[in-house]
Amino acid sequence: MTRERLYLFDTTLRDGQQTPGIDFSVEDKTLIASMLDAFGLDYVEGGYPGANPTDTAFFEKKRTKKAAFVAFGMTKRAGVSASNDPGLAALIHAAGDAVCFVAKSWDYHVDVALGISNDENLDCIKASVEATIAAGKEALVDCEHFFDGYKANPAYATACAKTAYEAGARWVVLCDTNGGTLPGEVTRIVGELIEAGIPGRNLGIHAHNDTGQAVANSLAAVEAGVRQIQGTLNGIGERCGNANLVTLIPTLMLKPHYAERFELGIDGDKLTDLTRLSRTFDELLNRNPEHQAPYVGQSAFATKAGIHASALLKDPKTYEHVDPESVGNQRRVMVSDQGGKSNFLNALKRRGIEVAKDDPKLDRLISLVKEREASGYAYEAADASFELLARRTLGRVPDFFEVQSFRVMVERRFDALGNLKTVSEAVVRVIVDGEEILSVAEGQGPVNALDIALRKDLGKFQADIADLELVDYKVRILNGGTEAITRVLIESSDATTDRWWTVGVSDNIIDASFQALMDSVIYKLLKNREQAGSVAAE
Amino acid sequence: MTRERLYLFDTTLRDGQQTPGIDFSVEDKTLIASMLDAFGLDYVEGGYPGANPTDTAFFEKKRTKKAAFVAFGMTKRAGVSASNDPGLAALIHAAGDAVCFVAKSWDYHVDVALGISNDENLDCIKASVEATIAAGKEALVDCEHFFDGYKANPAYATACAKTAYEAGARWVVLCDTNGGTLPGEVTRIVGELIEAGIPGRNLGIHAHNDTGQAVANSLAAVEAGVRQIQGTLNGIGERCGNANLVTLIPTLMLKPHYAERFELGIDGDKLTDLTRLSRTFDELLNRNPEHQAPYVGQSAFATKAGIHASALLKDPKTYEHVDPESVGNQRRVMVSDQGGKSNFLNALKRRGIEVAKDDPKLDRLISLVKEREASGYAYEAADASFELLARRTLGRVPDFFEVQSFRVMVERRFDALGNLKTVSEAVVRVIVDGEEILSVAEGQGPVNALDIALRKDLGKFQADIADLELVDYKVRILNGGTEAITRVLIESSDATTDRWWTVGVSDNIIDASFQALMDSVIYKLLKNREQAGSVAAE
Repeated sequence: MTRERLYLFDTTLRDGQQTPGIDFSVEDKTLIASMLDAFGLDYVEGGYPGANPTDTAFFEKKRTKKAAFVAFGMTKRAGVSASNDPGLAALIHAAGDAVCFVAKSWDYHVDVALGISNDENLDCIKASVEATIAAGKEALVDCEHFFDGYKANPAYATACAKTAYEAGARWVVLCDTNGGTLPGEVTRIVGELIEAGIPGRNLGIHAHNDTGQAVANSLAAVEAGVRQIQGTLNGIGERCGNANLVTLIPTLMLKPHYAERFELGIDGDKLTDLTRLSRTFDELLNRNPEHQAPYVGQSAFATKAGIHASALLKDPKTYEHVDPESVGNQRRVMVSDQGGKSNFLNALKRRGIEVAKDDPKLDRLISLVKEREASGYAYEAADASFELLARRTLGRVPDFFEVQSFRVMVERRFDALGNLKTVSEAVVRVIVDGEEILSVAEGQGPVNALDIALRKDLGKFQADIADLELVDYKVRILNGGTEAITRVLIESSDATTDRWWTVGVSDNIIDASFQALMDSVIYKLLKNREQAGSVAAE
Repeated sequence: MTRERLYLFDTTLRDGQQTPGIDFSVEDKTLIASMLDAFGLDYVEGGYPGANPTDTAFFEKKRTKKAAFVAFGMTKRAGVSASNDPGLAALIHAAGDAVCFVAKSWDYHVDVALGISNDENLDCIKASVEATIAAGKEALVDCEHFFDGYKANPAYATACAKTAYEAGARWVVLCDTNGGTLPGEVTRIVGELIEAGIPGRNLGIHAHNDTGQAVANSLAAVEAGVRQIQGTLNGIGERCGNANLVTLIPTLMLKPHYAERFELGIDGDKLTDLTRLSRTFDELLNRNPEHQAPYVGQSAFATKAGIHASALLKDPKTYEHVDPESVGNQRRVMVSDQGGKSNFLNALKRRGIEVAKDDPKLDRLISLVKEREASGYAYEAADASFELLARRTLGRVPDFFEVQSFRVMVERRFDALGNLKTVSEAVVRVIVDGEEILSVAEGQGPVNALDIALRKDLGKFQADIADLELVDYKVRILNGGTEAITRVLIESSDATTDRWWTVGVSDNIIDASFQALMDSVIYKLLKNREQAGSVAAE
């Protein structure tokens, strides 16, 4: 049976920008666009060039290689011609392959929001699409509030959609802008619209999660004939979010009900990158990942298996709806078993650490990691700290130097000129080869001061760390409130292209930062030694 | 049209107990059971008496007044009679009104997990139900893995369900234990089961969220004839969670599509308690509330309304699918650099600050907010800081006290016993009524120390801040790497149920924290003064 093509349209950078608490910089958008492009999304909607400085800058060049790069914006203003509308021009001349217009399709909005007649609105839709096509670009039309508009005035909503289609829009997207439409209503309305003459292959669905059914609405629309789904990474978006592409993609690719009938633009083996894509996105935004997220959540395949007989564990299909590895996630049976051990052995192998499966030190390492992760350490995110912990537990790591003590001070006071200034200073006492070295440094803040002081004079190791650089610093407060503990993640790099992450956890942010800094320095010294050919771990 | 009765079965305390990271004590369970009872749930499943000490203790007495109190557990063991099965006895004699048995309904599990024949399993179901009814209690049967079992062997799955029904079970609950069933499959299978002779009024649905469709599956089952829905508060539960009752209840009570046909056991006016129920539950478990949760999330009705014309704000139905007040939530039109003047005026109005639309100070406030937000301040997340900024810009805020200087120190060293310890100390110099007060404090970390020192002695204001409490602390590094600036958000509360957020931004985390702490204290002093009846802003 020939499969039909289903198109995925990502609006993370546009509708996702509306998420409370999220603000993308041009750098953020550039990175995310390339991640989406590499993963295989068909359309990447980048933002609204002309509406704000960030998006205008972002659209100065095309940001995707394979995916269509889409500019979003309003239809032509009433009362001016297409060639005289600067907003329209900004959209069409932006560095995108396509323009996605948001058009009113609810007569009430046409009247109260735009203050024009129903027919004028149709003309604006038509003119916008035609101008886009004339400029050699693909046109899409988001019919805003479509389902509510259809319920209020089905003839007019249909007319808006038809106008867009007949003007040459490649896609007419039905938007559940308020998010309150139910799946059965989506099924009915999409069916009626197709009956009215717009082919399903030109229809898209843009759902919101206000009744917790954005995914279900998207799939209901596909069942009814729609062939484009709009959504965002990790379901971000206004209010309760957009349809979560990270949830939809595996369902479409792994459930035979869909996989047998539809084909996406995503390669089969790309699916195993899904968990990493989702988590990288959260890290970028410094968002707490959703532990219970379908498919990719840390707990998505975790069972407190009390009821499962061990015999069942041999046939995962009896308690798992899909194989966790297929989406790049892993099974967590939170009772010690063989499955857990092989995960560890693989992780160690990937770092060049060989250990026998029955070595008691391996058990010790596993329980140490579990214990620490329960208290806040995130080894998944801190590969270098994991490696150090493993090397220390399974063998030995040289004691390059010792930090005897440190003191960090932040002072805010008025200077001699009466200006308020804040000064941060750190003093570190290290012992290298039995010799005590005392260093002091000032910095932008307490952690920066501590970092500089720590690396100011490490005796004979000074040359080794000369090219060590702190590249990124992330803080997360776990447990919140007064019982809070702080987790610090530090990314470091050096003159090679290597980058590594280290972690520290404490109720004291300086302490947590210190742990992560130390791990970074030790890792660097170990790395240099290995590259020089010495034996690192015995 | 007479409405049919729909029953809600809460398994927060049983299936919810399987949530990674959640462990209820008897006290927790008692409190939650009474909350569920008061809200109007029909069934409260309390746990598995006999399986663990907590649940055994919990079932020593009935914990609900109105709701049926349900004991959960496995069907009778094969090979022993009902009267000789201590596990069964524990369930039947527990202080509940009903027993809900989990029964195998997938032949593969009957074989591999139980090691008995298909017929023996049916006998166990029958005997368990009959013993329960003979003891004067209601019997329910959870058909475990029902949908997967039905797909593998429809005749056997049906036989299990029928056996339960014919033995007298009030409810036969179809469980999507693996969570991978799609709504269309639920519709089909429920329909076929009803055709096979089990009335919908005796059928229940127990969905899991592994494809993000637990809510949709529950509603699909209801559409197909099922009349009991099982779920949990805030969708907790194994892996990706159970069906979220907090999402389902408003949909069933507010959407005419359901409200016209079905009646729940929850009073209409109870619905306004929903948001509080949801947040109280999160507080109890020290869980971060899901900001984007449908209906009850902090962001569920928050718009970064740039595109919305001010005229639309007059008719909320045009952009909101239900009235937020109906579920005890509120509309938040957020102050952000995308907002227009009317947004600002609304935000100020809600805080009791009146200003004329053409007042030049309003323009100054707007540009100040935009400037600061561009440099990292997040006023939409920090309502109290916004209010202070507004009051200062539009009028005057009293100078309650002045911080002349502060000094924070973190020191890590070996103590007299040779143990490594970290000490944090802060010294703050304040001026109150021309008098200089010097305070010192130690704390868990530098910010905690600074907080305690700042509030240790504020002279005549000390009584005013006695009940001030720092409840949550969030840090975010913006711009990353070496050019990083730090944004700190602090949540505070006091003896009233008020909670407020303040923000601070600096390249120095201590400085940023200090700004947020200061705003919190000033806000508290202002709040006390207003409540005492004085004029706060001139």
